[in-house]
Amino acid sequence: SMGTLVAPMGVTVDSFVGVLNITNVNELKIDKKEVERIFTIPVSYFAKFKPSEYFVRLEVHTQKRSEDGKTIDMFPVKKLKLPNRYTKPWKGREHKILVYETNEETVWGITAELVYEFCKLINQ
Amino acid sequence: SMGTLVAPMGVTVDSFVGVLNITNVNELKIDKKEVERIFTIPVSYFAKFKPSEYFVRLEVHTQKRSEDGKTIDMFPVKKLKLPNRYTKPWKGREHKILVYETNEETVWGITAELVYEFCKLINQ
Repeated sequence: SMGTLVAPMGVTVDSFVGVLNITNVNELKIDKKEVERIFTIPVSYFAKFKPSEYFVRLEVHTQKRSEDGKTIDMFPVKKLKLPNRYTKPWKGREHKILVYETNEETVWGITAELVYEFCKLINQ
Repeated sequence: SMGTLVAPMGVTVDSFVGVLNITNVNELKIDKKEVERIFTIPVSYFAKFKPSEYFVRLEVHTQKRSEDGKTIDMFPVKKLKLPNRYTKPWKGREHKILVYETNEETVWGITAELVYEFCKLINQ
């Protein structure tokens, strides 16, 4: 187990490292509903290259649009007597996103985060 | 310790329950920079009344506006060869927000979540 990763949007991911006793990834039976494609990148690649760092920003919205275009108040700030500033979208902090631009595929987000943490663990 | 709460926006809160040996909350020396006002509500209130449930929705934005109104690409989706859908704000799931409308004060969000979890613990 590599523990629990807390991603933005309040998602947590519990990750586990596995060893596959296979000679070719084509031996794997994948669920096409869950997995589009499998590819491999040597661990040495991630040990050698550091990921690039980018940022995204989070906003919390209290309203949404219904299918017929009407504004729906999901969280009635005024009725609940909360400060007026909560009527506008709440701006969260900027969140770092790691990106490995490999020849094979762009590895980013939660995947890159897990790879990065794994490399730190095996280097300890 | 009540464990770790994962709030939206990727924030985690480790909470602890304390017992104060005081007769009046005015005995507390509070840091005005951190705490605006202290008030008390009996635990029996929260045992009796269930919180209301509302929702907010999270959006992840890859751009921001600079002070002179220019659009800054914080996460260059096209340059990183990621699918086009990531150029628009990413819509997250709706996130539940608990609200206790007490006579004293509206208790909501992370505070309400911690109160709710505490009431569950003492009822076990």
